[in-house]
Amino acid sequence: MSICRAAFIVIGDEILSGRTQDANINYIATELTEIGIRLTECRVIPDVEEIIINTINEMRGHYDYVFTSGGIGPTHDDITSISVAKAFDVELKLNDDAVARLDHYYKEKGRELIESRLKMAMIPEGAELIGNSVSAAPGFYLENVYVMAGIPRIMQAMFALIKPELKHGDKLHSLEIPLFVSEGAIAHDLSELQNKYSAASIGSYPFVKDGKYGTSIVVRSTDARILPEIEKDLKTIKEKL
Amino acid sequence: MSICRAAFIVIGDEILSGRTQDANINYIATELTEIGIRLTECRVIPDVEEIIINTINEMRGHYDYVFTSGGIGPTHDDITSISVAKAFDVELKLNDDAVARLDHYYKEKGRELIESRLKMAMIPEGAELIGNSVSAAPGFYLENVYVMAGIPRIMQAMFALIKPELKHGDKLHSLEIPLFVSEGAIAHDLSELQNKYSAASIGSYPFVKDGKYGTSIVVRSTDARILPEIEKDLKTIKEKL
Repeated sequence: MSICRAAFIVIGDEILSGRTQDANINYIATELTEIGIRLTECRVIPDVEEIIINTINEMRGHYDYVFTSGGIGPTHDDITSISVAKAFDVELKLNDDAVARLDHYYKEKGRELIESRLKMAMIPEGAELIGNSVSAAPGFYLENVYVMAGIPRIMQAMFALIKPELKHGDKLHSLEIPLFVSEGAIAHDLSELQNKYSAASIGSYPFVKDGKYGTSIVVRSTDARILPEIEKDLKTIKEKL
Repeated sequence: MSICRAAFIVIGDEILSGRTQDANINYIATELTEIGIRLTECRVIPDVEEIIINTINEMRGHYDYVFTSGGIGPTHDDITSISVAKAFDVELKLNDDAVARLDHYYKEKGRELIESRLKMAMIPEGAELIGNSVSAAPGFYLENVYVMAGIPRIMQAMFALIKPELKHGDKLHSLEIPLFVSEGAIAHDLSELQNKYSAASIGSYPFVKDGKYGTSIVVRSTDARILPEIEKDLKTIKEKL
């Protein structure tokens, strides 16, 4: 059984100030779960070089994959690329392939590839580019660190390109059963169920629907065969409530 | 000048699996910014005792305030309270005041305060309770660590109670000016503007509105007096584009 773990770093003062609501954590979480990669930690950090460098270096040794979003645009507060270069102790250099992509994109739009836009073609040495079908400016990856844009639809376009190349872990199969019972009323039974099936992780999430209290039971396991067994036990619990 | 820094820890497998979209980061970020507390880091971590303990202990020495959400419900996967007790090396005990609040709430609803619900009255020794006007089960704080529920409207009710008691830092004044110009086209001028005003932080965020590219310029500073000066400079930049 192989478990593949990942961390996600959201880089951007705008998330920490509340100006912008993050949408990338949920997207990455859902996509990684689908292909059997466990998102084990997310961090939201500010646009501060030292913090970006330390966070990347702490995480890249610890996880199979590290994904980042944000800070690769053309302005002075976009410092992710230089920080990643420093984290890996490599040069940040003008990447010919990235220049060609930007040049093509701006020519088509009848706009100029001015110097500030060339900043988006400055890529750490040794990195491979990640395409961007939305605005051409590429992301990149270096070893196990994948650097993507912060704008959700651009990040999603980039992730769609790298997703097929990622090594998958054992897929986590899951089952979700909503019950119209409060968490407290089912807590004892759930605890016993969890003890019985140590190969599964059983979570419970309260909800209110049409004014009625309910609890959604979420069961996850890499062993698909035990899910029907747990489902059967849950039915027995439900009938007895 | 006093700067007050905070970290926010979102505890919950359901966020990392993508099942649930976090809504608490943006709420806390906005609320803290409003009262001059800088949210400097957020982490999303799983329901794993060792990780919760280590994260809390790492952060509580580092920040003025640590806020957490999630994991204080009645079920077996709610392990935040015991983890916080262990992080502080104190006992987790039945809190009489918390029992009374739950008892009152369930009596009013005509429901029973069964044993599993009493789990929500298990509070680390020495902690002060945080009220919960929605479902009675309290949060708590111990030194500079504030432990709140994960359900957004409960977390918001708890935060509303503690907010007036928090020491405020110098408020960060801000100014947001949307310009219909691409980030690349204004990057050079913005960089010069940032160099001119080191007491402000100038961020730029691209947007698309009615099919037109734009860039929102966000200026923040604890010194309110320089904002009109920067606004004037931005007008000059805009006219010259």
